[in-house]
Amino acid sequence: MKLCSFTKDGRASYGLVTETGIVDLGRRFAAPTLRDFLATGDLAAAAALASEPADYAFDAVTHDPVIPNPDKIICVGLNYHDHIQETGREETPNPVLFARYAGSQIGHGAALVKPLESDQFDYEGELAVIIGKAGRRIPEAEALDHVAGYACYNDASVRDWQKHTHQFMPGKTFAGTGAFGPWMVTADEIPDPAALHLQTRLNGQVVQDTDVSLLITSIPRLIAYCSTILPLLPGDVIVSGTPGGVGARRNPPLWMRDGDVCEVEISGIGTLSNPVANEV
Amino acid sequence: MKLCSFTKDGRASYGLVTETGIVDLGRRFAAPTLRDFLATGDLAAAAALASEPADYAFDAVTHDPVIPNPDKIICVGLNYHDHIQETGREETPNPVLFARYAGSQIGHGAALVKPLESDQFDYEGELAVIIGKAGRRIPEAEALDHVAGYACYNDASVRDWQKHTHQFMPGKTFAGTGAFGPWMVTADEIPDPAALHLQTRLNGQVVQDTDVSLLITSIPRLIAYCSTILPLLPGDVIVSGTPGGVGARRNPPLWMRDGDVCEVEISGIGTLSNPVANEV
Repeated sequence: MKLCSFTKDGRASYGLVTETGIVDLGRRFAAPTLRDFLATGDLAAAAALASEPADYAFDAVTHDPVIPNPDKIICVGLNYHDHIQETGREETPNPVLFARYAGSQIGHGAALVKPLESDQFDYEGELAVIIGKAGRRIPEAEALDHVAGYACYNDASVRDWQKHTHQFMPGKTFAGTGAFGPWMVTADEIPDPAALHLQTRLNGQVVQDTDVSLLITSIPRLIAYCSTILPLLPGDVIVSGTPGGVGARRNPPLWMRDGDVCEVEISGIGTLSNPVANEV
Repeated sequence: MKLCSFTKDGRASYGLVTETGIVDLGRRFAAPTLRDFLATGDLAAAAALASEPADYAFDAVTHDPVIPNPDKIICVGLNYHDHIQETGREETPNPVLFARYAGSQIGHGAALVKPLESDQFDYEGELAVIIGKAGRRIPEAEALDHVAGYACYNDASVRDWQKHTHQFMPGKTFAGTGAFGPWMVTADEIPDPAALHLQTRLNGQVVQDTDVSLLITSIPRLIAYCSTILPLLPGDVIVSGTPGGVGARRNPPLWMRDGDVCEVEISGIGTLSNPVANEV
């Protein structure tokens, strides 16, 4: 099942994506957002509507980030060997975590915004994990039971601001830089996220390509580690890390520019596509 | 004017702190939280109630974090020379920023929770800045116009988890470690935050003591820098950094333990006091 968040005629809602379009769940359930709907745990009620006629064509809405309002977006850095290698950094025994603020997110089709302050605007295709069931100190063996689903994420980075100091966050949370979509695929359809394959394309050229099995800290271990720090809640997002091939480490560097199109495709999920635009 | 957030008889609200207690603003205004109330911009309406009889004695409520639900908590690291010196790090030309998640916060009087996973639980007394008026790329000269008020913050840190990797965040956002209170004092009473004085005490012993004028990146410059990255919103919190004297850099180290009491006092604001308790 595919679930998305969207705005139609000025009204924010969420829906079930079917072959013919979007079934508007926000009109059928009391939960005001997809995050709240995940918290009800009643995904079966949405699945039961799969044969309803679509309320809108998929392209007739404005797509919002899959979860526009997560309590937490936890980003993972340096979680593929080929990316560690290209950065010249060393592997750490624990995952490298930093935050992105929810207000920096955009949906499928919206512009990735190259800020006025930088020309070093880089893509980072990643697998996003969306929590469905709350928990603290979740054991690795039970971790996947807490996942509601998976989506594509472009954790676009403003590299010079990321390197202003040793802490990455400023370059990782500029407005309009966290693309999250086009939908989430529920976990029942993805029994093992390590079996997925991820590809990032800039203007059609493959720039990142990896098996998710190459993650250094696996999805279950990330969930166990993050939930040790504080409870994970429904709608929380773990953005699991980007593989090698980022623009900053190419010679010459390959930066995203106004008019480009960046896509993140993950097998079994779909393709997140965003144009790039200069901030005006 | 002093504003606080609290829970009374299971109902979360916010109020005006007067000499006799708390005037419950949540019962008198439509805004459901102090964050929402700040967004209305109508602080004068609260001030007009200063001579109302208090609804509750100050100690008759459970104190919540001043802003329990900020959109963003932006923490600043290494922002006093004496703290940089004790850590052996070098000054950076730009501020060191990392995030704390809202769910890690506690109010005045609540226990700072030493997590099961660590004995390296450290205090960090800091001045918190609460945004009142939204803005992006706020010029330094106008920055203080965007401040609603100031409060005390204990940015308690789990040092070993902070050092798991080069990114601080995991040690900076454990559940029950961000104490924020006892109230905010509105900016009209604090024309220059640099004129404040901050002191942290552990079991009555002074462990940190600084003039806020010694901040390396000033409050106006922090607001300008942070708001370049993404818009600051009413209720956003900037935790401006801790001075020298942290427990981790003492010989022997001075860690917070079950039964301790940690206080952060800032002149013109008041004293935030929290016991320390082992997690059970």
